Amino acid sequence: MKQPIGIIGLGNMGMPIARRLLEAGHPVRVYNRTATRCDDLVAAGAKRAATPANAVPAAGIILSIVSDDAALADICNGPNGILACPDSIHVSMSTVGVATAQTIEDQHAAAGLAYLCAPVFGRPPAAAAGALWIALSGSVAPKERVAPVLAAFCAGVTDFGTVPGAANAVKLANNFLIGAAIEAVSEACALAESHGVKRAAFVELITQSLFDCPVYRIYGEAVAERHYEPAGFRLALGLKDITLALDAAATQSVPMPAASLVRDRLLSAVANGREAQDWAALDAEVSRAAGLAAPDPPR
Amino acid sequence: MKQPIGIIGLGNMGMPIARRLLEAGHPVRVYNRTATRCDDLVAAGAKRAATPANAVPAAGIILSIVSDDAALADICNGPNGILACPDSIHVSMSTVGVATAQTIEDQHAAAGLAYLCAPVFGRPPAAAAGALWIALSGSVAPKERVAPVLAAFCAGVTDFGTVPGAANAVKLANNFLIGAAIEAVSEACALAESHGVKRAAFVELITQSLFDCPVYRIYGEAVAERHYEPAGFRLALGLKDITLALDAAATQSVPMPAASLVRDRLLSAVANGREAQDWAALDAEVSRAAGLAAPDPPR
Amino acid sequence: MKQPIGIIGLGNMGMPIARRLLEAGHPVRVYNRTATRCDDLVAAGAKRAATPANAVPAAGIILSIVSDDAALADICNGPNGILACPDSIHVSMSTVGVATAQTIEDQHAAAGLAYLCAPVFGRPPAAAAGALWIALSGSVAPKERVAPVLAAFCAGVTDFGTVPGAANAVKLANNFLIGAAIEAVSEACALAESHGVKRAAFVELITQSLFDCPVYRIYGEAVAERHYEPAGFRLALGLKDITLALDAAATQSVPMPAASLVRDRLLSAVANGREAQDWAALDAEVSRAAGLAAPDPPR
Amino acid sequence: MKQPIGIIGLGNMGMPIARRLLEAGHPVRVYNRTATRCDDLVAAGAKRAATPANAVPAAGIILSIVSDDAALADICNGPNGILACPDSIHVSMSTVGVATAQTIEDQHAAAGLAYLCAPVFGRPPAAAAGALWIALSGSVAPKERVAPVLAAFCAGVTDFGTVPGAANAVKLANNFLIGAAIEAVSEACALAESHGVKRAAFVELITQSLFDCPVYRIYGEAVAERHYEPAGFRLALGLKDITLALDAAATQSVPMPAASLVRDRLLSAVANGREAQDWAALDAEVSRAAGLAAPDPPR
Repeated sequence: MKQPIGIIGLGNMGMPIARRLLEAGHPVRVYNRTATRCDDLVAAGAKRAATPANAVPAAGIILSIVSDDAALADICNGPNGILACPDSIHVSMSTVGVATAQTIEDQHAAAGLAYLCAPVFGRPPAAAAGALWIALSGSVAPKERVAPVLAAFCAGVTDFGTVPGAANAVKLANNFLIGAAIEAVSEACALAESHGVKRAAFVELITQSLFDCPVYRIYGEAVAERHYEPAGFRLALGLKDITLALDAAATQSVPMPAASLVRDRLLSAVANGREAQDWAALDAEVSRAAGLAAPDPPR
Repeated sequence: MKQPIGIIGLGNMGMPIARRLLEAGHPVRVYNRTATRCDDLVAAGAKRAATPANAVPAAGIILSIVSDDAALADICNGPNGILACPDSIHVSMSTVGVATAQTIEDQHAAAGLAYLCAPVFGRPPAAAAGALWIALSGSVAPKERVAPVLAAFCAGVTDFGTVPGAANAVKLANNFLIGAAIEAVSEACALAESHGVKRAAFVELITQSLFDCPVYRIYGEAVAERHYEPAGFRLALGLKDITLALDAAATQSVPMPAASLVRDRLLSAVANGREAQDWAALDAEVSRAAGLAAPDPPR
Repeated sequence: MKQPIGIIGLGNMGMPIARRLLEAGHPVRVYNRTATRCDDLVAAGAKRAATPANAVPAAGIILSIVSDDAALADICNGPNGILACPDSIHVSMSTVGVATAQTIEDQHAAAGLAYLCAPVFGRPPAAAAGALWIALSGSVAPKERVAPVLAAFCAGVTDFGTVPGAANAVKLANNFLIGAAIEAVSEACALAESHGVKRAAFVELITQSLFDCPVYRIYGEAVAERHYEPAGFRLALGLKDITLALDAAATQSVPMPAASLVRDRLLSAVANGREAQDWAALDAEVSRAAGLAAPDPPR
Repeated sequence: MKQPIGIIGLGNMGMPIARRLLEAGHPVRVYNRTATRCDDLVAAGAKRAATPANAVPAAGIILSIVSDDAALADICNGPNGILACPDSIHVSMSTVGVATAQTIEDQHAAAGLAYLCAPVFGRPPAAAAGALWIALSGSVAPKERVAPVLAAFCAGVTDFGTVPGAANAVKLANNFLIGAAIEAVSEACALAESHGVKRAAFVELITQSLFDCPVYRIYGEAVAERHYEPAGFRLALGLKDITLALDAAATQSVPMPAASLVRDRLLSAVANGREAQDWAALDAEVSRAAGLAAPDPPR
């Protein structure tokens, strides 16, 4: 029989991951703050856990993917948190700050648990298809033990060694690159439009030649068409991640002026009512600064 | 028999284009400022022209691809320039400023020639393989006439209408996107490295997932490995193009802060002796500002 | 007899303030983490306090001016902290974050103390001369009670109302303006120098005409002469203050790109070993990016 | 008798300068493109010149102060331009680009005239009061000859040596500093306002302490009160000067990111209809990006 797995956090990503593990034959326990999110999985054979600690198999593997640093701290250190379960392995897939990752790793060590940083790369459809990519850092033995479990929903795993927080730095650097690409495409579209070029034709050309990859295809189309809704990734979350990247860089005295620029643009978008749109909506601020027409914010 | 074609400018791109046309059966005349660059093509069947005007087939098609705005003005307006050849069609493939494109288009109209903006997308190997992409703007009839000629060395042509300079704006926007990507990847590598991550492993991950496209693969590897030589595209040329993009944007009151950032970084690289390296060498300035080791400039 | 005053924190600013109060006839109690800093004042008539709480006169006025948010939290909430002394008024003159100010004001209210934000404007010589300026925010009655005390070392007080943290926002905005001025003067000197202009002559001209004020005279000379030592204000402290300004702005969704630029420059200076120099040393990074000679960092 | 002087360009600055020279007893000839601007001065004793060349006293001194590089080129090289008058000394007080200054100086040398770069520092009231400051560069002998003439309307002259264009670089660096100060004060006011601080109270405090100088008093009040009209200095002219500063810096490979930031902000203001307001109106863009209320543009 396959080893039992606990999963905490059934959002857009956690849900398809849990489903993949069930389908692969793992006994699965699930916990979510809003318990009704568990219903479908329970109907499909998962067991509902009443607390985070309840979701952890004895000396087993617990996966978590929650919204931010505070939520992660809560499921670890809160009442009935994961830290009450020594000898287990916590595979932490959330995008959190590097300092937070280091603190939480220390707490796990003190409580007798292994902690692996395992942020995921890909969007919900990739999760459903088992095509995610994972950046992994942490101790060697737990990494070996979780490898077959990750294979159930990942196309590949890149090992970033044993430095605490290394995989989180990778994830933050990746998300910064996405934000920087959105800013750049928005500026490029403004330049092109101002000279009589159709935005969509411009984006079509670049995504057929040098920029033929998911980020430029997905965000290129959103920017060209000014489709800012529904949000694939909320602008407020993008601002959170860019801020985490800047914080992680500052602790090492690394200036990131392009990240500062993206952050200032996202702040401007929030100040003008776009925090719940997709982060492609930073384009609206680029357009406005250029005197070009952009759709009104939702309120 | 296929129609005769003239080609002016036998640099990294012009040379393989000329060869493709010869191989496709076009009678080809070639002109290059440094005449010895023509020798191999002449040996292969091309005819050497002593002046730009000499290279233009009567009422025919002349392609040009030269290094900058001044060189383009020179082959058009200089002694024995293209403008002496009315009724011909000039397919201008150089990366030049939008204002220059508009001025030169006006001069062609006054002299009785058609002028098409036709900047190319792709690198020398794509030219040799007939896999370039072209952005085209200008009058309709000449565009139709040159279509079969372009097919000899292009995988596709995107038509950006009849606005003078539109295709140039597209090319400048594209090159800005490349520069912005190099800056972003450099900052991301600095962040990752400062947290103990191997730069190459980071770039490998992103180019296997969301950034799986030529720009990130080519420049990602150059930045990760700090391979700034030999230059695929000289940093000084990158600075020229970003400056042209900013100038084209400013005439339309379009601010491009990411382009300003890239330009300031490239100026810094030139100030520190890197103008002849590949423009991936802007990474050295990113690293230096972060206190990370970078290879010394060549002098 | 004048009312007794307690003073916590005898740094460059606290020391001359304490001396002014002694000279004005106030009974003065002093506390400093490194107790020997108190010796001269005790010899001059002050009373040494063994703990922060000991320095607070019963239902009296306690002034504090310490190095950062953590030190302020410590003298308030730490063992034998100020919060143990209800009915007293805490005049907090440190430069701290707006969020910190709000938290600490709440804690004072809960413990029955009044808390006034009272950051000071001016440098040590102004303190010695009684010529500081104070930005004040907090409840009305305590502000009235402390007015005659502040008059002993201040040329003026500006009242910024009762919003918690308002005076701190003012101080952070002021320090941001200083940092922005240093960056601008450094860039202007680089431009001038690159065209054969003597830096000192340039700064002399502007400080005789449109920029005839302390910030441009003091930092203009430091930048022109590249005198980065001794530190009037340590670069690491400047970085702290700019970061606090950006944090305070971000909570209100206010983008401050000039502040982001100054922060990135200061990070670069720290990464290159200048954290203990005056923050005028950010000029060294401006010069280096322009290929101009700058003195080596201390290590 | 005092030596005769010619003056070309009777704008806000040229007019009071001409008046001062008349009052000091110099025979004065005046030329202005719009001839009626000369009427008052002619009534006061000046002689009207029909062309620029007509305004130049034989082997004498001609002052000029016109709006931009093109206007300067026109009065020098145009029909009946200054270059037709050898042996005279041209004191050029306009704010023009460094490259333009060098080109025009060369043309003067070839035509047998001396050319002095003499941009002025101060505003119209200072001109009327004889309190301008001048930055001077050029050959030694002409500088000595014009000294007593400049004394009629200047409080002081700073000599920046003999490098062509040096004084122009100084002027551009000065105007950049003004633009940078407006941007910084706008951001500082946005931060303060977002925390409940009255903008005017903040500006009053800083201009009473560390920023007690004309630039911060004048523009500080304009920004705090959002008084963008009437224009003391038109925003479009500010954009021109910042662009000239960036161009002058780029020729020497000097990056000026703060200048890039100010330029992008001014472009945004122009794109949104504020080109005819005072350049303090860049504050409206700072406010808008922060979601704060700003007055509508004029159209």
